Amino acid sequence: MIEDKNQQRTPLSDLGEFGLIDHLTKNFKIKQSSTVKSIGDDAAVLDFKKNKIVVTTDFLVEGVHFDLSYMPLKHLGYKAVIVNLSDVYAMNANATQVTVSIAVSNRFPLEALEELYAGIETAARIYNIDVIGGDTTSSMSGLLISVTAIGEVEADNEVYRSGAKVNDLLVVSGDLGGAYMGLQVLEREKEVYKVNPNNQPDLEPYTYIVERQLKPEARKDIVKLLKDLDVKPTAMIDISDGLSSEIIHICKQSNVGCDLYENKIPLDPQVISTCEEFNVDSTTIALNGGEDYELLFTINQKDYPKIKANPSLTVIGYIREKEAGMHLVTRADTKIALKAQGWKNFND
Amino acid sequence: MIEDKNQQRTPLSDLGEFGLIDHLTKNFKIKQSSTVKSIGDDAAVLDFKKNKIVVTTDFLVEGVHFDLSYMPLKHLGYKAVIVNLSDVYAMNANATQVTVSIAVSNRFPLEALEELYAGIETAARIYNIDVIGGDTTSSMSGLLISVTAIGEVEADNEVYRSGAKVNDLLVVSGDLGGAYMGLQVLEREKEVYKVNPNNQPDLEPYTYIVERQLKPEARKDIVKLLKDLDVKPTAMIDISDGLSSEIIHICKQSNVGCDLYENKIPLDPQVISTCEEFNVDSTTIALNGGEDYELLFTINQKDYPKIKANPSLTVIGYIREKEAGMHLVTRADTKIALKAQGWKNFND
Repeated sequence: MIEDKNQQRTPLSDLGEFGLIDHLTKNFKIKQSSTVKSIGDDAAVLDFKKNKIVVTTDFLVEGVHFDLSYMPLKHLGYKAVIVNLSDVYAMNANATQVTVSIAVSNRFPLEALEELYAGIETAARIYNIDVIGGDTTSSMSGLLISVTAIGEVEADNEVYRSGAKVNDLLVVSGDLGGAYMGLQVLEREKEVYKVNPNNQPDLEPYTYIVERQLKPEARKDIVKLLKDLDVKPTAMIDISDGLSSEIIHICKQSNVGCDLYENKIPLDPQVISTCEEFNVDSTTIALNGGEDYELLFTINQKDYPKIKANPSLTVIGYIREKEAGMHLVTRADTKIALKAQGWKNFND
Repeated sequence: MIEDKNQQRTPLSDLGEFGLIDHLTKNFKIKQSSTVKSIGDDAAVLDFKKNKIVVTTDFLVEGVHFDLSYMPLKHLGYKAVIVNLSDVYAMNANATQVTVSIAVSNRFPLEALEELYAGIETAARIYNIDVIGGDTTSSMSGLLISVTAIGEVEADNEVYRSGAKVNDLLVVSGDLGGAYMGLQVLEREKEVYKVNPNNQPDLEPYTYIVERQLKPEARKDIVKLLKDLDVKPTAMIDISDGLSSEIIHICKQSNVGCDLYENKIPLDPQVISTCEEFNVDSTTIALNGGEDYELLFTINQKDYPKIKANPSLTVIGYIREKEAGMHLVTRADTKIALKAQGWKNFND
């Protein structure tokens, strides 16, 4: 589906390992004052003064996490950074640096890696982070990307999954289920394309959800918003595996239960219409879809007036005693126990 | 060659992603006071007070960096950590944490990953570091390990590749070429085994060099020794790609030249005898062999009395003006320009 516009195909063996890293990162600018030394030595050197740091890492594997038949390499580079930044923001921290390592088979020419790194550079520029290191090696098959993200947080401002208290409100940013439905549309168009390669897909009715899948954003703005509103969440997590799974993480680690209200779950109209088209239940998609990279957090009820008017935030439930369990309260006012479906990579 | 002693084969799909990480890391103990929060949240939280931190990352790919037909998984886990710690020590820093991400195909049972993590845990215990995070996912083929190591260094104690000055002495720890010759022996025995699987290899004459390949150590002790001796190197790098390549890195980044004396290069007797057996030149092996994970550094001549008696350290040359070039001074007292052969992963 993605046309290969690269006329040029330079074999990676023309550059060698040292030449490749230098070539791919030569346009990367240092933006963070905490970056003392970036790429070019045995290790990067960082100075966070008295701040604490947060560290998170994610692996993206071709054929498991992405499909290059509809994922442009530039978007992939962007997304590989974003999914890691999302974890940093979920700690209530400010993302500052990433390392990016790739393993790549010989079927990729240099121009493909340049596209990938253009996406990485774009994410670094927009989110104001430095790419401070990485490793570039060959793989036996396909493309694998391992990113480690680092952030900083002032004394005791970090937010764990474990701090939710009974009667806290459960709040989510943005809307849910879009990334998963975008993936369903792309998978369907791929099948159509396989049957008839001349059939150009019309993705116009799906622009929002396809973008949610191919070019997600991390909610740096929400971390800033909460700070500006003087709201410190009691617990926070990013939604990478689906709302249900993330709520369960917070409840288990906080030793509490919760009621989640089905009619409060924020859904974009495009998600609703696409769910109807695919004949799937939109609540199920929001609960288990994954890859939305929104933030889920809990706040003390006294902070409710500060957030209630904000269009980016939706109160979707509240925290209860552990003994009450973790439930979805349906539109029909029945209670269903929450289950973690999430992403299962090791399914046979 | 390696017998599979695992009678049990538990499919990874029995655990799922969350269960797998929990299972593999449940015995890992926190040892560093800088580790505030380890595995179990969106990110780890670290507190280095006023110290700077160093960050480095390396990718190990099956079929490129290791061959499981003679590399036991426990050794592989150990080595994956060690190669990263080596980069931290090469900054004159103290290694404190690692993240370990693996991508693994379905051909590996749970018991194989337990072996791998036993090696990771052993390295973490011996080098007193914490495993603070990681990602576990499936791969389309083979095993890939991405490790990021973090260390701390007190104000201005870090040592870069770029600080070598004219007349500084060029010093190396340990001895060179062992890991590469160990690999040659293992490759030869693998070929013998392919022809006759009943032929058990006799590795007795090669124990030192095989161990250098399969279970290398990082020179944490040298960083401590230099501190105890009150010697701060002017430049430092670890020898992962071969002495020649690393000397060139230091010279280029320091804008200097050097003379390296062939007759000073430290070689273990087993390396010399194995080189004779394989009919290869031991100097060439030391210069280009790679994977020794020794430290190469430069010191001001005034510090020479402090290090001269130490059996772990050998002065192998000295730094000259850039215009003098970078040369090997042979036993026959001729000069040969140094070339970076190093490891070429992208060769066709």
